[in-house]
Amino acid sequence: MESDWPMLSVGNLGEQGLLARLQQFCPSDVVGDDAAVLSSLQTADLVVTTDLLVDQVHFSDRTTPPHAVGWRAVAANLSDLAAMGATPIALTVGLGLPGETAVAWVEHLYQGMVDCLAQFGGQIVGGDLVRSPQRTLAITAFGQVQPDRVIRRSQAQVGDLIVVTGYHGNSRAGLELLLQPNHFAPIPSLEGDRWIEAHQYPRPRLDAIHQLGQRLAGDFTQNPKSFRIAGMDSSDGLADAVLQICRASGVGAELDYRKLPIDPSLARHFPDRAVEWCLYGGEDFELVLCLPPQIVHPFLDQFIAADNPGATIIGKIIAPPEVNLVDPQQLQAPQRLTLEKGFQHF
Amino acid sequence: MESDWPMLSVGNLGEQGLLARLQQFCPSDVVGDDAAVLSSLQTADLVVTTDLLVDQVHFSDRTTPPHAVGWRAVAANLSDLAAMGATPIALTVGLGLPGETAVAWVEHLYQGMVDCLAQFGGQIVGGDLVRSPQRTLAITAFGQVQPDRVIRRSQAQVGDLIVVTGYHGNSRAGLELLLQPNHFAPIPSLEGDRWIEAHQYPRPRLDAIHQLGQRLAGDFTQNPKSFRIAGMDSSDGLADAVLQICRASGVGAELDYRKLPIDPSLARHFPDRAVEWCLYGGEDFELVLCLPPQIVHPFLDQFIAADNPGATIIGKIIAPPEVNLVDPQQLQAPQRLTLEKGFQHF
Repeated sequence: MESDWPMLSVGNLGEQGLLARLQQFCPSDVVGDDAAVLSSLQTADLVVTTDLLVDQVHFSDRTTPPHAVGWRAVAANLSDLAAMGATPIALTVGLGLPGETAVAWVEHLYQGMVDCLAQFGGQIVGGDLVRSPQRTLAITAFGQVQPDRVIRRSQAQVGDLIVVTGYHGNSRAGLELLLQPNHFAPIPSLEGDRWIEAHQYPRPRLDAIHQLGQRLAGDFTQNPKSFRIAGMDSSDGLADAVLQICRASGVGAELDYRKLPIDPSLARHFPDRAVEWCLYGGEDFELVLCLPPQIVHPFLDQFIAADNPGATIIGKIIAPPEVNLVDPQQLQAPQRLTLEKGFQHF
Repeated sequence: MESDWPMLSVGNLGEQGLLARLQQFCPSDVVGDDAAVLSSLQTADLVVTTDLLVDQVHFSDRTTPPHAVGWRAVAANLSDLAAMGATPIALTVGLGLPGETAVAWVEHLYQGMVDCLAQFGGQIVGGDLVRSPQRTLAITAFGQVQPDRVIRRSQAQVGDLIVVTGYHGNSRAGLELLLQPNHFAPIPSLEGDRWIEAHQYPRPRLDAIHQLGQRLAGDFTQNPKSFRIAGMDSSDGLADAVLQICRASGVGAELDYRKLPIDPSLARHFPDRAVEWCLYGGEDFELVLCLPPQIVHPFLDQFIAADNPGATIIGKIIAPPEVNLVDPQQLQAPQRLTLEKGFQHF
């Protein structure tokens, strides 16, 4: 595919030629009509999420090769499905391109999308291809969930434990290394590559949803109404996720400074930044869940065995509607977390 | 809403403020999670379609006020659902905006979308709001259809009659009047306004799908497998629709020059352009259907009574894989239609 890069442009190839090349990435039975038909879901609810990504705003050639742009875009949408407790079915891709875009760029983008889908589930079932002055990618993903297993932000209750999958801050560290490769003291390539991979190739935590479903199947089969898990993904940062859940649920949270899910290497190499990146860095695409204490520990045990760095209890839900970061050793002053430090799109 | 136009910009208001304003356009129970949950469809298949629309490419302040941008964008997607025989359920809206965009522009856009949905069905169930150098609108619409009632391009057979809803060419005439208001001889405002409305406020032909469903319910209840209708919408032009159906079905078509569905006023005011605009103008968002002769006439009778200009038989499907426009009075030379004259996105 590299051979014609960057000679052949989208404008040279034309719309029909580009469509023909891109159809190889879609199942053949959904190509060619005004819309795609998906067979009925029967017993599950449909979950829908959409993202718009713009060159120079959400990605750039400087930090993200086209394969990773495609992977990340799909991963972000699948992460939103996971945050609802859903598993992926399909997605649509709207693509806006300047005529001078290399065809190879577009093919790598699609390859990244289908590689992510192949690993986590779902397929591309439709799309739109238009001219645009800025490269623009619009993805809508559909998933399914049993109606009594939906995870919502608004379901946290006082006494719930707050469980977080994975490390937080690595994606931001990777982005910083990509943006300012000579700004920092040399980082061992093992760590540097891991953080860059965390930024370019995030992994939606559908594995945690799967484990949770298995774990809870026994507990809730007798009484499905008792299912209650609050949660969301940490795409806009760990602090943002906890704050959004608390706001939607009308509760507060106390987080344990010592339990923040920071990669030990990150804390070592960036002692001044690691906590900030963990709380506010964003784009780690992990899950933040609030669970009743009686189901947390069996879930954690099972989950840690299956996946490293697994999941961590970082705090608990409290009644006062504020989110505080507290150091049990009292070496750090308590800190009140706010939405203002999170990512603002405008 | 006009009172703060154009002083208050999206950048001034901020993301959270704009989101709060836009949530009034969505049902309250779908706002606030990572994704929207739609109740299960049970017996129907899910139909999905997506469009990406970019300022200066697909719309502009010169020809389309924001309310009409929203209406047209929704109408185009609902038309794709109608083309599959489906009825609308919901849609998602991805919106990319420069910070200097007037908040009132965004509110008019959303009002146009919900006005179209209120008339034809469906609701906004999710979205994304991002910064973008060019105003960009990504819509994904979902509909439902009985699995044995799907309309596809590939199902035309020799002997089918080709039925077209509505007039073709009016949308293009409206666009020309908007782009070059002083270029043409004066047009009576009755006609001019009608053509501009055809361009700005197209109406997806879900009424025809509904009538077809009612008409066919009797014929096909005994033998649902016998349902076979080929079709698509005419968003890229009438000629394009016939050509696409023929290509997908491996057949050809003969169209009757005298039956082209041209608004009589259009033919009178634009005698040199009306046929070209009818065939290649595009964006009329009508339906082009291929039906077995035995069900065409009862359908047409019922349909004409319900809606003017109703539907017209414009030709028939033939075996040779070419599409010809033929004048039965032989005053016009036969003309071979090709895809090359249609709209190319690049």
